[in-house]
Amino acid sequence: MERVPILKIGDILLVSIQVDMSDQTAVTLQDDLAERIVATGCHGVIIDITALDIVDSFVGRMLSTIASISKVLDAETVVVGMRPAVAITLVELGLSLNGIRTALNVERGMELVAASRDDEWDEVGGDEDAETTATS
Amino acid sequence: MERVPILKIGDILLVSIQVDMSDQTAVTLQDDLAERIVATGCHGVIIDITALDIVDSFVGRMLSTIASISKVLDAETVVVGMRPAVAITLVELGLSLNGIRTALNVERGMELVAASRDDEWDEVGGDEDAETTATS
Repeated sequence: MERVPILKIGDILLVSIQVDMSDQTAVTLQDDLAERIVATGCHGVIIDITALDIVDSFVGRMLSTIASISKVLDAETVVVGMRPAVAITLVELGLSLNGIRTALNVERGMELVAASRDDEWDEVGGDEDAETTATS
Repeated sequence: MERVPILKIGDILLVSIQVDMSDQTAVTLQDDLAERIVATGCHGVIIDITALDIVDSFVGRMLSTIASISKVLDAETVVVGMRPAVAITLVELGLSLNGIRTALNVERGMELVAASRDDEWDEVGGDEDAETTATS
């Protein structure tokens, strides 16, 4: 089980990190994610870290790299499900997760992605996306 | 990391199983799931097993138990992301996953849940749910 599964939900790719990330797992995840973004044309990547007890500099760097790769491929990255203790540790360690957007849970993350797409396309009208998240 | 995270997306609870299930993890997951169904009033439980290389009788039984518990709490369970090799092994082992509905991926699982809710509520009109999945 060295591969973190990537789930496609509408316009969003959802990744739930539950295992300890090794170098290899992290690289594989980045590769898989980049491929899936291109293959599906999704505009949002949501990374759920509910299961993580700690986010060290390695994981923090991995999240930043994923966000940067997604950005280049025209996809927004949102990290969701951070535990209060993880947030406290992050700040204490001096890791600020630069360039990474966060949300409380998956639903809010989806709203954030939809909202940022709507901003870009507001003259065209992104009502469909807004409606999808409004039902949540 | 002994707890499998449960993600709420709209009317659905999503569980992605990525770790080897021990007795304790399975019981905790069942308890957590039952509590979340009651707390959120969700009508669908989607269990993603993309990451599982094998589904043995223990995991099969756990999935059946979860489906039964959800049923009693008025929620539909759909298992998604089964690998071809897992399906073959299941049949060879004589495990037929009785009473468990399956779908190819999360999106189809969501459609299945929405469709079964629509069937129940067709006279009231479940258009909102149908629209949510139609965007996928």
